[in-house]
Amino acid sequence: MKNISLLTDLYQLTMLQGYYANGKHNQTAIFDMFLRQQSEASYAVFAGLEQVIEYINNLKFDNGSIEYLRDLKLFSDDFLKYLEKLRFEGSIWAVPEGTVVFAGEPLITIKAPLAQAQLIETALLNIVNHQTLIATKASRVAWAAQGAPVIEFGLRRAHSPDAGVYGSRAAIIGGASATSNVLSSKLFDLNVKGTHAHSWVKSFDNELDAFEAYAKAFPDNCLLLVDTYDTLKSGLPNAVKVFDKLANKGHKPIGIRLDSGDLAYLSKEARIALDNAGHKDAIIFASGDIDETVIQSLTLQGAKIDAWGVGTRLITGKGVGMTGVYKLAEIDGAPKMKVSDSSQRATNPGHKKLWRIYDKTGKAFADLIALQDEKLTKPLTLTHPIERWKTTTLIDYTAKELQIPVYKSGKQVYKSPSVRQIADYSKNNKSTFWDEYFRLANPHIYKVNLSDKLYELKNSMIIR
Amino acid sequence: MKNISLLTDLYQLTMLQGYYANGKHNQTAIFDMFLRQQSEASYAVFAGLEQVIEYINNLKFDNGSIEYLRDLKLFSDDFLKYLEKLRFEGSIWAVPEGTVVFAGEPLITIKAPLAQAQLIETALLNIVNHQTLIATKASRVAWAAQGAPVIEFGLRRAHSPDAGVYGSRAAIIGGASATSNVLSSKLFDLNVKGTHAHSWVKSFDNELDAFEAYAKAFPDNCLLLVDTYDTLKSGLPNAVKVFDKLANKGHKPIGIRLDSGDLAYLSKEARIALDNAGHKDAIIFASGDIDETVIQSLTLQGAKIDAWGVGTRLITGKGVGMTGVYKLAEIDGAPKMKVSDSSQRATNPGHKKLWRIYDKTGKAFADLIALQDEKLTKPLTLTHPIERWKTTTLIDYTAKELQIPVYKSGKQVYKSPSVRQIADYSKNNKSTFWDEYFRLANPHIYKVNLSDKLYELKNSMIIR
Repeated sequence: MKNISLLTDLYQLTMLQGYYANGKHNQTAIFDMFLRQQSEASYAVFAGLEQVIEYINNLKFDNGSIEYLRDLKLFSDDFLKYLEKLRFEGSIWAVPEGTVVFAGEPLITIKAPLAQAQLIETALLNIVNHQTLIATKASRVAWAAQGAPVIEFGLRRAHSPDAGVYGSRAAIIGGASATSNVLSSKLFDLNVKGTHAHSWVKSFDNELDAFEAYAKAFPDNCLLLVDTYDTLKSGLPNAVKVFDKLANKGHKPIGIRLDSGDLAYLSKEARIALDNAGHKDAIIFASGDIDETVIQSLTLQGAKIDAWGVGTRLITGKGVGMTGVYKLAEIDGAPKMKVSDSSQRATNPGHKKLWRIYDKTGKAFADLIALQDEKLTKPLTLTHPIERWKTTTLIDYTAKELQIPVYKSGKQVYKSPSVRQIADYSKNNKSTFWDEYFRLANPHIYKVNLSDKLYELKNSMIIR
Repeated sequence: MKNISLLTDLYQLTMLQGYYANGKHNQTAIFDMFLRQQSEASYAVFAGLEQVIEYINNLKFDNGSIEYLRDLKLFSDDFLKYLEKLRFEGSIWAVPEGTVVFAGEPLITIKAPLAQAQLIETALLNIVNHQTLIATKASRVAWAAQGAPVIEFGLRRAHSPDAGVYGSRAAIIGGASATSNVLSSKLFDLNVKGTHAHSWVKSFDNELDAFEAYAKAFPDNCLLLVDTYDTLKSGLPNAVKVFDKLANKGHKPIGIRLDSGDLAYLSKEARIALDNAGHKDAIIFASGDIDETVIQSLTLQGAKIDAWGVGTRLITGKGVGMTGVYKLAEIDGAPKMKVSDSSQRATNPGHKKLWRIYDKTGKAFADLIALQDEKLTKPLTLTHPIERWKTTTLIDYTAKELQIPVYKSGKQVYKSPSVRQIADYSKNNKSTFWDEYFRLANPHIYKVNLSDKLYELKNSMIIR
């Protein structure tokens, strides 16, 4: 990744100069990055940590950046000299990418000199918000597809080149099987897929010529797009003719792609036609304004679709109701919180740990946010974060800390796994949850509890 | 911009190999990029051309890319040798960035060897779709703000670093006054703005200390965020105290920022308090989940807001119902079109020109899509694109070709203006339209007509 040190909001730099001018820049600050819930989205899949690490490792204001800032006539020479030498020297804990997480949980915790911790807010949120959005959407889509492969192919509608590249990465982490994005596949070793577009068909005199030419060029990778003229009257019979020839020559046709029309009806008709022609293994691949809701609806109507191509709605994370924020939790040992109109939006003060509690069957039972120095008791009593009269006591349980150390005093102590490894980890991580938590509509709500100590601290600060 | 030649869908490359294997790669193809309407959005502001030019100028598959493609075991050595030498050698016409455009109009027209024209589809759409989305959203927001400055500050919610950088660029083109994004401002010489966040206030023992420290550090750039604890009981009186001191020392306070609560009520109360304290010039800056609809609604209730900070909804282009597609229009002189279920979605065949027709008052009256070789008559009869019985005849009019040449046979013949120049051009361009076309709800529909010749060509191809 290029040096994106200037990828920040100006106010981070004006605040830094203010901290510096007031001698506060080296106070020890703790910030938490967590998700805020905006709609009924029940869970998220955390992603983007590898790029946050790259950003932090490259964090350094080069001469050009310093001169640009000088020209703004907002910053003192003294401060700019300080900024030129600034590197990240703090500690960071984070949940691993691919982890199923919930609103309000500290996903990344930063303990660093105030100026350094403040500075990294914007880029960190930009990276993590984007990739977590896409990984979460991909997870929902893959869940609805019930094991059928989901191919990400939204690059043309992604919000810029980077959005396509890192969006594909996040989609694979979340559960997509492959992407059409060649650059992303090269950078992150992803499965890449693709055959042909309508323009291929139109560039020939007729559809059959186009199909035959494609089959000739790719006899073993022949998936034909059948809706350029008329799916049932032209595309499908032409595809069958070509598949017959391929089969006669010992090749195995991949199948057909439907990209418009009623996908339930067309897929059922296509299945019959392909089966009758002896192409029982030829798959039906569907695309066109698809996401988890559409997949579920089509599946309920018995659509015969073997694989899904998902574009715009995946790569733009349509409708995922979570977004990350970055809040000060402690400064020089003094806990800090943002008191807000609604208790739901008040932040959690202090240096915290995030625990996942598993019941005796090994399934995730609840998460627990506790203060750093708290030990978990056996039996363990869990209390609802707001409705404190609701408690559950667990006798037989196991607990796992979700955050792992990423930096210790400026030194990187964690290496990101490959995207394939992260995707596998994410799949396993999901398998520790009851499926009811993943339901698209009115999912079962997973409990995220606050320890009594953290609750008391928070409460004392609200009252004060 | 880095070399993003591999930023493409795999199917472009499999099609290229297919064209190459079938000897079709050098056929002369014409493709059009145009917007498809998805909801009631009436117009768009075209943006992204400068980055398309950079992409095309850098288009070249380097060794690493070729080796990656070879490892996929999909491509022949012969084809990869061809691909290694491939450069863009075609011609491109495009409307200038900042132009007000409408669905269905050819915004970029590419005439090039089929393989080259096909190859650039994905990156071109990625870039133009993104920037046009954001410029259009910014235009709607700025229109609703009625001259009050709009500051783009969505970087933390942009879909990746690039999305923030190019999103800010597009927002300024569309009508935003400034951005918080420092990197984008450096790259494109944009106005950059910012003061402080809640974390600044929380990092001090109390709000007044925080405000005083900020005023001390930035006596001439003092805009205070007043909602950390309680806007009316704490933030506002503390800000007034600090402003009084600043004024006594001869500094002019900038004003306050409201970021939560009811912005109509709070802004009216804040205006009274600031005025009563003699700070009539202090502005009220509002932020928090704002876009054109919210601005219009608050303004109707008499909110006293002088400037708007717009984040997530601008940088993600929320609700803009247009997206770009790229369709084959001609091959080796033979017009091509995609016939579709609905006549609305059928594409326009052939090499075309896009005209804007102005009435005698100088206002834009209608756009006209005609074939390349057509001359405009005087008087000019304009016919509705589908309802052909609807015609208008203009005697006194002027006409302007909207597309300008960008490449001629591979040579760049157009240099992008600066972003400031583009933003000025866009503002002027909008002033040639009646304001009724920009209304947010049920806008007047601007006419985009097809010439009789183009209509007849299209009709003959549908019938055939």
